[in-house]
Amino acid sequence: MAPHAAPAAHPRSPLPGAPRLTVAQCELLREIQILDEYGERRCIHIPAERPLTVFVDKRELVTLMTLGQCPELLVLGYLSNQRLIESIRDVESITVDWDVGAAAVRTHHGVKDLAGKTAKRVVTTGCGQGTVFGDAMTQLHTVTLPDAATARIRQTTLHRMLETMRQQESIHRKAGSVHGCALFELQPQGSEMLYFVEDVGRHNAIDTIAGWMGLHGVHGADKAFYTTGRLTSEMVMKGAQMGVPIIVSRNGVTAMGHELASRLGMALFGRAANRHFLCYTGAERFDSEPEPQRAAVRVVAG
Amino acid sequence: MAPHAAPAAHPRSPLPGAPRLTVAQCELLREIQILDEYGERRCIHIPAERPLTVFVDKRELVTLMTLGQCPELLVLGYLSNQRLIESIRDVESITVDWDVGAAAVRTHHGVKDLAGKTAKRVVTTGCGQGTVFGDAMTQLHTVTLPDAATARIRQTTLHRMLETMRQQESIHRKAGSVHGCALFELQPQGSEMLYFVEDVGRHNAIDTIAGWMGLHGVHGADKAFYTTGRLTSEMVMKGAQMGVPIIVSRNGVTAMGHELASRLGMALFGRAANRHFLCYTGAERFDSEPEPQRAAVRVVAG
Repeated sequence: MAPHAAPAAHPRSPLPGAPRLTVAQCELLREIQILDEYGERRCIHIPAERPLTVFVDKRELVTLMTLGQCPELLVLGYLSNQRLIESIRDVESITVDWDVGAAAVRTHHGVKDLAGKTAKRVVTTGCGQGTVFGDAMTQLHTVTLPDAATARIRQTTLHRMLETMRQQESIHRKAGSVHGCALFELQPQGSEMLYFVEDVGRHNAIDTIAGWMGLHGVHGADKAFYTTGRLTSEMVMKGAQMGVPIIVSRNGVTAMGHELASRLGMALFGRAANRHFLCYTGAERFDSEPEPQRAAVRVVAG
Repeated sequence: MAPHAAPAAHPRSPLPGAPRLTVAQCELLREIQILDEYGERRCIHIPAERPLTVFVDKRELVTLMTLGQCPELLVLGYLSNQRLIESIRDVESITVDWDVGAAAVRTHHGVKDLAGKTAKRVVTTGCGQGTVFGDAMTQLHTVTLPDAATARIRQTTLHRMLETMRQQESIHRKAGSVHGCALFELQPQGSEMLYFVEDVGRHNAIDTIAGWMGLHGVHGADKAFYTTGRLTSEMVMKGAQMGVPIIVSRNGVTAMGHELASRLGMALFGRAANRHFLCYTGAERFDSEPEPQRAAVRVVAG
């Protein structure tokens, strides 16, 4: 993997009227010397996070700490997930300049009531971007996910998703300390990975996916997310805002994440790696194809 | 562990003039039913995060998502780490009421320029509380840590700290999905754990420790932190603000965390578990007592 590798993406064309985006690149890894328990000095790689200050129509909005794998889509997804824009067509262009650590967003007609929309602050649980502007929380009742008959996942498909993630080349494998997030399209006979991105926080990763979906007009109804991060309330909320009914995590869940997903009718899978998983909620979207191992163990044990 | 267990704390008396604090308790665990890969339904525990809205002199400041193990110290440490108060003696009382999910902070003389101090927003990397008000970032040049001759750690002491953490009863062991943070006092012949707290985000955990230190007038110079979370820039920054020169993490480091700690002369240890660790920076604070294993392997291999 090149040190400035772009996220793995299925080739698509941007929507007509989509914003113009730069393709700013930066080093994703840094080499440092460490001292280990054997008294040896050796070199390892760590992820190279950096600040990116977002200006909307020349007004400073926020500073995001990011790995920088795809900053334009991160900013686009951030604006979208924070409901600061209604459509990606509201944005004329996003220009990222790493020399100054700035993302200049230009909109066609300005953002209505930017001050009001960003006034309420909720500091959230998650790894990564922790601020969810208050308005987003209150708009959740507008979310409708596809019903369980049409948007569901088989155990075999889930296994294959996990196998795809296991084999995926990643910054995490080289440097640790990043979260990955992938978007899968569910198909009758399995699934296809459409996009995979890593960032220092899992919120950045999911926002970048939102940016990618928005740019290409990709809808969430027949999709599943994979994330390495915990399933907290704001992760579930973002998934729901993006219309994705199924979320899979290598990690666990919190009570609010669980409650929110249950209320929204979303399926949550956690502790998912290799052939193991826990379906926390939304089992009505899941076609269980039970593993035989435990039965075999029982026979031996019994 | 009781479902509303308080953090493990070394007995101390609050400073004279310390704020009056309630001792609000809440359930820390929730039981949910899951479906596993064997098609079995069974019950597990998950951490019970909940929102806590902080009001300072009746003015809404922020909503924190927290496990709720010690909300009063969380709020006190949050105000302190965000530099919204200069001393804990500025605070008259903190009253937490879980029925309404609110923490009412009453100050003696108000907070000077609260609006100005909270106007700049930086969304940070970390698990947990992601918002660092701009002012805190710029006050770092005032930090001075004790020199490496007086504040240092031996490899044996580091091992014992890790062993203490391994044996510590925890919410994480029961329910996963929380971060733990502990404060150790470094002593000539080892170290003593003074405080251990868990929360859904590692920032909450470290803020709670800051609250405990502030309340009891405990200084950071002869202390070390242990955290399960990543060593990002804002974790390092908080450690520095609290005057703690040594931070140990079970997890990794990001480039900005590394850079900031190097600049401040702080020692950072990561991937620390059992007898393994990496000293990322600040080796001048470390008395290496190398493990013999690798040498033995070499003899065999050579």
